[in-house]
Amino acid sequence: MHVKSASNDYPIHPHLKERWSPRAFDNRFIEPEKIRSLFEAARWSPSAGNIQPWYFILGLKGTETFENITKTLDEFNLLWAPRVPMLFITVASKVNSNGDYNHTALYDLGQSIAHLTFQAMEEGLYVHQMSGFYPEIAKTLFDIPENYEPVTVVAVGYMGRADTLHPRMAKGEVKPRERRKASESVFSGKFNMPSSIF
Amino acid sequence: MHVKSASNDYPIHPHLKERWSPRAFDNRFIEPEKIRSLFEAARWSPSAGNIQPWYFILGLKGTETFENITKTLDEFNLLWAPRVPMLFITVASKVNSNGDYNHTALYDLGQSIAHLTFQAMEEGLYVHQMSGFYPEIAKTLFDIPENYEPVTVVAVGYMGRADTLHPRMAKGEVKPRERRKASESVFSGKFNMPSSIF
Repeated sequence: MHVKSASNDYPIHPHLKERWSPRAFDNRFIEPEKIRSLFEAARWSPSAGNIQPWYFILGLKGTETFENITKTLDEFNLLWAPRVPMLFITVASKVNSNGDYNHTALYDLGQSIAHLTFQAMEEGLYVHQMSGFYPEIAKTLFDIPENYEPVTVVAVGYMGRADTLHPRMAKGEVKPRERRKASESVFSGKFNMPSSIF
Repeated sequence: MHVKSASNDYPIHPHLKERWSPRAFDNRFIEPEKIRSLFEAARWSPSAGNIQPWYFILGLKGTETFENITKTLDEFNLLWAPRVPMLFITVASKVNSNGDYNHTALYDLGQSIAHLTFQAMEEGLYVHQMSGFYPEIAKTLFDIPENYEPVTVVAVGYMGRADTLHPRMAKGEVKPRERRKASESVFSGKFNMPSSIF
């Protein structure tokens, strides 16, 4: 099992420091009560006007839904994701009940998955989000209505051993997490002007 | 000071249970080391291809940046947000370095703010995100380049007393948090078909 602590410059909560996106997951099934807590965490996420534009199509390994979700994956993700115990598709509702376009639908959907991810860390579970999938196949297989957009496929499970992975993935599994500095993302005065807070 | 615990059906982490979006904030300034930890938390958020499409324009009360951020707010948010100690604009980079459209830019920006919010709870701070602002004014005032989209304005601070708010906001400040049930968002088989996990 590989640990990837963030090399953070300023203190952050352990669930954020230790979070990363493995591809090697254990075969072990996830306890149903833990799965319920994951989606309960997503439920209490904030959203513009409390619209809650998040929906999820949940597949547990061994079910037809799981098999269908694997059919939406791209060639790279097919090399690892079908072995995880749980996959789900995230879907954004892009139009409000009054018919208006909700321009923060994806932003709020992303927040709900971040909430789910913190809860996963609390449960000893890891999350790996994928944008490498075919949304059109998902729409067809799951009868996803117009104005609803599949955005990511998410894998959840207990961490496994990196040496069980396809060779194409072995390096990524152990390479340190990297980010540009916070000071390169936070501006004051004008865009691209550094803030004095750092 | 008003507490709004989520009436959750399944256990969730206290930072998710107790999180809510107040409008009544205390005058007290936020310690710079806490502000650095907030953006450090955002920094370690996941993103598709590790693109990190998140940028922030930070205004601390009393600065010109803060004044300019208040100029982007809509009429409703102007009634409360100018009194908070810290405001920032979230900005999504919508195009990758290779020129391709990044269709998860807003989703990943939302995740980074959820990470920041989780860290805020850890620091005893509260966060209130607003979509009620004028992105075009923000683009002009802060020279935000083409292909970068201002998505929300975010208020951060210590919680204040609800009775200091404009009367239009008093009710919302104490009304319980509400969400549809998790079981109404999680499907299996087809979209809109309930999952057996609940």
